[in-house]
Amino acid sequence: MTKLETFENPYPNRDYKISHVNPEFTSVCPKTGLPDFATITINYIPNKLCVELKSLKYYYLDFRNKGIFFEASTNEILDDLVKLTDPKWMEIVAEWNTRGGIHSVIKAEHKSESWNG
Amino acid sequence: MTKLETFENPYPNRDYKISHVNPEFTSVCPKTGLPDFATITINYIPNKLCVELKSLKYYYLDFRNKGIFFEASTNEILDDLVKLTDPKWMEIVAEWNTRGGIHSVIKAEHKSESWNG
Amino acid sequence: MTKLETFENPYPNRDYKISHVNPEFTSVCPKTGLPDFATITINYIPNKLCVELKSLKYYYLDFRNKGIFFEASTNEILDDLVKLTDPKWMEIVAEWNTRGGIHSVIKAEHKSESWNG
Amino acid sequence: MTKLETFENPYPNRDYKISHVNPEFTSVCPKTGLPDFATITINYIPNKLCVELKSLKYYYLDFRNKGIFFEASTNEILDDLVKLTDPKWMEIVAEWNTRGGIHSVIKAEHKSESWNG
Amino acid sequence: MTKLETFENPYPNRDYKISHVNPEFTSVCPKTGLPDFATITINYIPNKLCVELKSLKYYYLDFRNKGIFFEASTNEILDDLVKLTDPKWMEIVAEWNTRGGIHSVIKAEHKSESWNG
Amino acid sequence: MTKLETFENPYPNRDYKISHVNPEFTSVCPKTGLPDFATITINYIPNKLCVELKSLKYYYLDFRNKGIFFEASTNEILDDLVKLTDPKWMEIVAEWNTRGGIHSVIKAEHKSESWNG
Amino acid sequence: MTKLETFENPYPNRDYKISHVNPEFTSVCPKTGLPDFATITINYIPNKLCVELKSLKYYYLDFRNKGIFFEASTNEILDDLVKLTDPKWMEIVAEWNTRGGIHSVIKAEHKSESWNG
Amino acid sequence: MTKLETFENPYPNRDYKISHVNPEFTSVCPKTGLPDFATITINYIPNKLCVELKSLKYYYLDFRNKGIFFEASTNEILDDLVKLTDPKWMEIVAEWNTRGGIHSVIKAEHKSESWNG
Amino acid sequence: MTKLETFENPYPNRDYKISHVNPEFTSVCPKTGLPDFATITINYIPNKLCVELKSLKYYYLDFRNKGIFFEASTNEILDDLVKLTDPKWMEIVAEWNTRGGIHSVIKAEHKSESWNG
Amino acid sequence: MTKLETFENPYPNRDYKISHVNPEFTSVCPKTGLPDFATITINYIPNKLCVELKSLKYYYLDFRNKGIFFEASTNEILDDLVKLTDPKWMEIVAEWNTRGGIHSVIKAEHKSESWNG
Repeated sequence: MTKLETFENPYPNRDYKISHVNPEFTSVCPKTGLPDFATITINYIPNKLCVELKSLKYYYLDFRNKGIFFEASTNEILDDLVKLTDPKWMEIVAEWNTRGGIHSVIKAEHKSESWNG
Repeated sequence: MTKLETFENPYPNRDYKISHVNPEFTSVCPKTGLPDFATITINYIPNKLCVELKSLKYYYLDFRNKGIFFEASTNEILDDLVKLTDPKWMEIVAEWNTRGGIHSVIKAEHKSESWNG
Repeated sequence: MTKLETFENPYPNRDYKISHVNPEFTSVCPKTGLPDFATITINYIPNKLCVELKSLKYYYLDFRNKGIFFEASTNEILDDLVKLTDPKWMEIVAEWNTRGGIHSVIKAEHKSESWNG
Repeated sequence: MTKLETFENPYPNRDYKISHVNPEFTSVCPKTGLPDFATITINYIPNKLCVELKSLKYYYLDFRNKGIFFEASTNEILDDLVKLTDPKWMEIVAEWNTRGGIHSVIKAEHKSESWNG
Repeated sequence: MTKLETFENPYPNRDYKISHVNPEFTSVCPKTGLPDFATITINYIPNKLCVELKSLKYYYLDFRNKGIFFEASTNEILDDLVKLTDPKWMEIVAEWNTRGGIHSVIKAEHKSESWNG
Repeated sequence: MTKLETFENPYPNRDYKISHVNPEFTSVCPKTGLPDFATITINYIPNKLCVELKSLKYYYLDFRNKGIFFEASTNEILDDLVKLTDPKWMEIVAEWNTRGGIHSVIKAEHKSESWNG
Repeated sequence: MTKLETFENPYPNRDYKISHVNPEFTSVCPKTGLPDFATITINYIPNKLCVELKSLKYYYLDFRNKGIFFEASTNEILDDLVKLTDPKWMEIVAEWNTRGGIHSVIKAEHKSESWNG
Repeated sequence: MTKLETFENPYPNRDYKISHVNPEFTSVCPKTGLPDFATITINYIPNKLCVELKSLKYYYLDFRNKGIFFEASTNEILDDLVKLTDPKWMEIVAEWNTRGGIHSVIKAEHKSESWNG
Repeated sequence: MTKLETFENPYPNRDYKISHVNPEFTSVCPKTGLPDFATITINYIPNKLCVELKSLKYYYLDFRNKGIFFEASTNEILDDLVKLTDPKWMEIVAEWNTRGGIHSVIKAEHKSESWNG
Repeated sequence: MTKLETFENPYPNRDYKISHVNPEFTSVCPKTGLPDFATITINYIPNKLCVELKSLKYYYLDFRNKGIFFEASTNEILDDLVKLTDPKWMEIVAEWNTRGGIHSVIKAEHKSESWNG
């Protein structure tokens, strides 16, 4: 797996929100083998670490030829980023292009135990 | 009736939200026999089961030649999906095309008894 | 006056929200005799009765040649519909076209005494 | 000063909201002598009196050749209208056109002491 | 550094909100040396001082050839403006143009200790 | 019939184009007795006379309670305005609100015999 | 087949253009048996006859449960309407909803032999 | 009158097009004394001289308190700018805000005699 | 290579236009190895053969992991489709997502020798 | 000056159109020393050479701290690119952000002598 990188939060004493929107996410449907396309948005309040943007781009590339369901990839991205950066709060929103006439959105959220935001 | 199918929620320990938007719903007005068109949105937090997308598409097709009022079909879809998947929370939003110069929206919600979301 | 009609709420045990948007409302300014145009939106949670859509269209037609101020017609529509259907909650939003360079919106709300929504 | 006029609130027993949007407000910058342009929105819940629309239009005209800062005119309009109509609640939103590449919005609010909205 | 200027809040007795939106902010990426572009929005409730708009424009110009990360510049602007004006409440929203296919937003907030807004 | 008025073209030596867009046109369907709504646009190159705007507004009001088909009203307005102002070129575009799920546009054009535009 | 009806062109001496846009067309894919959705636009210059709007709506309904390819239905509608009304000029534009990630548009045109438009 | 200024066309050997859009034009209606608002667009192909932008802004300010009809101001601006810069081609488009429910556009064009564009 | 398929043009005697828009095209940059994303539009007038939609979807998939420049893929698609269907006229429009802050569009066209459209 | 690079046109036998849109162009006003922002679009039909995209990005960076008028930079870019690539046809469109309330667009075109497009 591509190594996701971090850098130190330059303002650890203030709770502020970071969003990274990637409209070019693509993975493969495990049932049909056809590609799926989504806009993936990460919203988070950093703790001690921030997600490094270039490694994030390469991390997304690992999904390009991977067979995975909508519900699973959204939660997997959340798990990977939470494990990596231990954020105060994090949310993943995945908006999937129309398949069979139906457009889907999956949204998963993580709150650190010590955080009351 | 077409059989709505489910699959196991891959992340049952996390409360996350799934939305499926179908802009191609059509049924028949029981008064005039003329077709009605709507965008039907399902928003839900799964419990143990998720709605399978392809069977959902076929489920919607059953309404294509069925005479049913706006208020009834919205609530019927909610009832069917709640019965099928026992979600923690579910909401159906039906946005109907203009009829007689008037555009209508119906919104119905279900909360499971054990859920405090 | 045109008779506003109702039909029985098909799902009286569930609190759900109905919206009817009419972008073609027109009445007459009592001062100038010139027509006013508005989009009238009804949002409500039905109790035992729903507003019948066709009779609603005819009800609106009664305002076409009636001289009435913005503030009065919005509240009058709310009074008429509350009296007719005894809803759990109802709101009327009237968005008026520009007059003298100024665009106006009037919003009035009713809550039934027994309702804690 | 142009006389702002009022009329009696036709529904004094119900708390409802009135908005008047004027996209054609213009005043003069006291520093440069150049014109400023804004969209001024009044949102309020009337008490016993409503703002008369035509006199409001003429009231705005008084600012056309007056040198006044953004922050001051927004608050001055709020003061004038509160004094005139003693509303339960009132808010002025002034959205100013870009000056020096920067676009500004000023928002001021008044609540009557007896009101718990 | 360019001197940020202030002027006295003309309505210090009322809590009102001021927003300044600058869609023409540009700085330099410290890694690549390439320019970054952002829309910077300041939202605040003034205490005794307001930010003077012309000096704000010149203040932003100081970032034009400065190498600085997204997270750092957003928080630095907040720090500078809080120090300068001691506002009751202030928020900086920085929306950055797409880099590597990813679009980012950073949002930081300050509340004065004596304020319960 | 309301008297349509004209004023002298202030620049008769130059061929220039005038457009008047009225988004608040309403007439009555001769079949159903129900109102129709349209946006009527007049585009023309004046000869010696221009259409006076206030009388045009009153002219449109004559259609408010008149039963007339889409195709007929569009052409009738063109005939009336051509007769009144003898323009070098004139075009009427009527965009009608949706009826029975179908949205219609009618466009009629007149060229004076002596004009080669 | 539902009988398409006509009415006499009220302005046969002037070449003017009529458009009817139906965003609620639906037919069935002959391969998969699944519904297709399209917006069908008719643009024409009438000769002696105009298309009657209500019968047009019923004519479209005949496609609701008919298996037919995109290219065929567009041309068939053109053939039917040309045969019915013998227009000076007519064009059918069919814009089909996304299928397999691809959105299609078909456009067919007819010019009467005696017409030089 | 404010002095409109010019500067030498830096590329006189190439026919290229310049557009200046001013969305903040305002003049006074000579009938009612009330302000009118327009977006004025100048499109031109320069000959030896270009319109200087700052003086253009001040030139527009002269209309702020001047009573003048739509048709007259559009043509007057064209006359002034043609006289000043002798362009190869010039066009003025004035888009006026809604008055009495009607929105107007005036468009006037000038071609130099020696130009065949 | 995936086999592109055709079907017989159902209306070979009429020149009509077909468009297929694919907003989900992706290939790989041969320089950086990173993915590129584009919307590819095919516009054509068929001769004896039409492009079969499902095989077109699979044809596009062949580019998913192929290193190819913008200019080359646009022209290659045109060449492949012209060779396959021998259309009367065909055009490919490729709109590429932003790379390095720059958004690109490539447009290539083919006319058959015997066609004078 | 940064070296603009080219690559060989991969399809020299076909006339096709390439567009590169850069919404992040910035230069400095030679009068005020303040930055100007523009979207620069290059449209061209290549001859033997294409503009290399990465070098184009660096070429634009040379304008970042350069004092130059709108009319001059647009034409200078056209001159540089024509000299570099000798295109069959080329057009530069520069859309400048609002200054002093006025938004400007400059458009310059080049046709090679041997080209009849």
